Amino acid sequence: MKHLLTIEELSEKEILHLLESAELIKRQRGREGQPLKGQTWAMIFTKSSTRTRVSFEVGIRELGGSPMFLSKNDIQLGRGEPIIDTARVLGRMVHGAVIRTFAQQDVVDFAEYSGIPTINALTDDEHPCQILADLLTVREKLGGWDGKKVAWVGDGFSNMTISWMWAAKKLGFEFVVACPESYAPPAEFLDKLSAPNVRVTGDPAEAVESAHVINTDVWLSMGQEGQAEKEAAFGPYQVNDSLLASAASGHIVLHCLPAYRGKEITEEVLEAHAGTIFQQAENRLHAQKAVLAAIAKS
Amino acid sequence: MKHLLTIEELSEKEILHLLESAELIKRQRGREGQPLKGQTWAMIFTKSSTRTRVSFEVGIRELGGSPMFLSKNDIQLGRGEPIIDTARVLGRMVHGAVIRTFAQQDVVDFAEYSGIPTINALTDDEHPCQILADLLTVREKLGGWDGKKVAWVGDGFSNMTISWMWAAKKLGFEFVVACPESYAPPAEFLDKLSAPNVRVTGDPAEAVESAHVINTDVWLSMGQEGQAEKEAAFGPYQVNDSLLASAASGHIVLHCLPAYRGKEITEEVLEAHAGTIFQQAENRLHAQKAVLAAIAKS
Amino acid sequence: MKHLLTIEELSEKEILHLLESAELIKRQRGREGQPLKGQTWAMIFTKSSTRTRVSFEVGIRELGGSPMFLSKNDIQLGRGEPIIDTARVLGRMVHGAVIRTFAQQDVVDFAEYSGIPTINALTDDEHPCQILADLLTVREKLGGWDGKKVAWVGDGFSNMTISWMWAAKKLGFEFVVACPESYAPPAEFLDKLSAPNVRVTGDPAEAVESAHVINTDVWLSMGQEGQAEKEAAFGPYQVNDSLLASAASGHIVLHCLPAYRGKEITEEVLEAHAGTIFQQAENRLHAQKAVLAAIAKS
Repeated sequence: MKHLLTIEELSEKEILHLLESAELIKRQRGREGQPLKGQTWAMIFTKSSTRTRVSFEVGIRELGGSPMFLSKNDIQLGRGEPIIDTARVLGRMVHGAVIRTFAQQDVVDFAEYSGIPTINALTDDEHPCQILADLLTVREKLGGWDGKKVAWVGDGFSNMTISWMWAAKKLGFEFVVACPESYAPPAEFLDKLSAPNVRVTGDPAEAVESAHVINTDVWLSMGQEGQAEKEAAFGPYQVNDSLLASAASGHIVLHCLPAYRGKEITEEVLEAHAGTIFQQAENRLHAQKAVLAAIAKS
Repeated sequence: MKHLLTIEELSEKEILHLLESAELIKRQRGREGQPLKGQTWAMIFTKSSTRTRVSFEVGIRELGGSPMFLSKNDIQLGRGEPIIDTARVLGRMVHGAVIRTFAQQDVVDFAEYSGIPTINALTDDEHPCQILADLLTVREKLGGWDGKKVAWVGDGFSNMTISWMWAAKKLGFEFVVACPESYAPPAEFLDKLSAPNVRVTGDPAEAVESAHVINTDVWLSMGQEGQAEKEAAFGPYQVNDSLLASAASGHIVLHCLPAYRGKEITEEVLEAHAGTIFQQAENRLHAQKAVLAAIAKS
Repeated sequence: MKHLLTIEELSEKEILHLLESAELIKRQRGREGQPLKGQTWAMIFTKSSTRTRVSFEVGIRELGGSPMFLSKNDIQLGRGEPIIDTARVLGRMVHGAVIRTFAQQDVVDFAEYSGIPTINALTDDEHPCQILADLLTVREKLGGWDGKKVAWVGDGFSNMTISWMWAAKKLGFEFVVACPESYAPPAEFLDKLSAPNVRVTGDPAEAVESAHVINTDVWLSMGQEGQAEKEAAFGPYQVNDSLLASAASGHIVLHCLPAYRGKEITEEVLEAHAGTIFQQAENRLHAQKAVLAAIAKS
């Protein structure tokens, strides 16, 4: 593994290896070694994100490295200067890069031209680090995903659902997306995915029935605030006590945060499952440290 | 001591302990140990502030830790996401927090929900770190405050004066506030303070007469620029040579900076007392290192 | 050497010493010692700059220090607070300063009042760090400048050309500036420079003929975008294959980046000389580490 750009490109073996490494690193926090010693890692964030930023900055430091945060005020990937120039310069100065931006192609180009280990910390296409943290939480809470049903309630074709669908494809668990028809994954994507264990429905009750893991996410992501039409379409897809009534016993609820109480999730459900949800947030740190340790050049 | 949220909540013994620790840490700069080793401290600054930021970043590093600066562009306490969620996430990732914001309640909530050591680096209600630096300067310059008269000339009910009034209450020195009537501490506050050694007057000459310490501050704090009416009310409260003529011999002048020459202080007074005033600025570093060392979890 | 404020103030011996130190530090990257151990260096950037920022942050860290980046959102040199106050405060808290701003006088004042080692990381007057990196590249690629002709094609009186002209004066190589008449160095500057080996022409072909080093830079620097008139004046000063046809065999092309393909340089020339140009960018890191090591207080 040289980069982490997508879940799509990971094998089952690589995913399992990363999760086992994350579990070890989590247990050993404070005594986990310094694979990034002497290294500076650029964190290039075209979109702001507290959770992603904090978890990577802390993780890089705890592995002995130094994070260098570059916001859209500091660097504009592909604005003014072609990415291939920025990548060639940074690749000679820093030891790795964590990139949060819009176009997946920008991360791919950066990885190619910089020649340094590169991590996708969220693009329009995928959010692999979040899904690794989510899978880690599922392992911790439920012992794994064999024979488990995972439901997604909300936007059916976001970076989150795309990464989850690829994870389901690689790992083989049942994954059911419940979403409004106009927010469903397009047929071409499902053809490319080619995963019989991944299913799409318009009915949240059907998705959640007997599910062990119920996942949701904000309806309107950053920059979409105020799109009343989109919000209205998602009204029936709220995760609340009534929807969860038919879930499997011992089910867990995941939310990658920030949560909008009364929108995609109720206050009651959020607080009832806060133990899991904030553990999931913390797992960003451990999962990402496993990724950093796996791809850092020694 | 688990947090530093106010001077109000400190005992005399805690204040004295912090100041003694600061003096030791100052003498030992470069050999002061690493109580924050392996720790990342979030610095959440809703208001910008060079002096506060620099002194905390340097202090955290010199104690072995790593500061992570989060400005209002990076994180918005209570905007979008409730503080109790932000606090629960950060509390699982970082080892402590330094917060500069508006509402005191936000710092209190953060401390409670994050479960990590939390420092008030300035709120609308108090500025405890600055007052500790000021007290340290008084000890260094005058040997202490027993039998000394401390005057405050300017805004009578700001975070600075509130913290000073609580310090006077705890430590017992004479503290006289000279301010325009409409900027005086309200009766309810003085009732709650219940400190006979704290007095308010409209007459700056009365406050400064025989005073050993003369304190002032900007008339218009950040965001109030252009409030001509407020500025006019403070006209008679300038610290200048004429006002200082009746001060005690060997008096010192304190200013927490930035200073506006010709407004709250004259160029002459500022430069004549620059030795004290820039020592006071430097003491932010040492006082805050003492606070960090006192509340850091080992 | 206490500060690095200009090339003008450096002697030939100091320049050569810095370049030799840079070469050693470059060879030893990762084993270069920690002359900045325990130190925090303020990086005060009134203008944003990825390349300058990244190279200094990485360099400071690799020498054992901690960079503290302060952008124009964090600190405003001379706005609100006089530089002499900011300098006196920072001088008591941090161990050195790297400043990128407009007025040279601000850097001079900061150095004087702070009392700490100060580096000019670009002002309106000079860009000494870039020129040291350029000279390092010339030494690496051509073995030195004795008997070599260096051409500059573009703006004749920018911080870049001023620093290059002083370098030519100190080191004695032939330096020919080709620029439109209205962008030529004024007579007073050339009188002050008093360097017979520095020549100005309006004809780029004359400058480039038999030149061993051909230098160019963006026509419109940051903030000048959209000045169509200036851009039009520079039309004949593009570095392209046709212009380079008469250059010395084995010539190199330098560009301090960012490059605007089709403006000051063609895509073909940029990519043909990418090996040199990105090495030149990387040399910022090594040259600046040599400067930091030379002026840091131990």
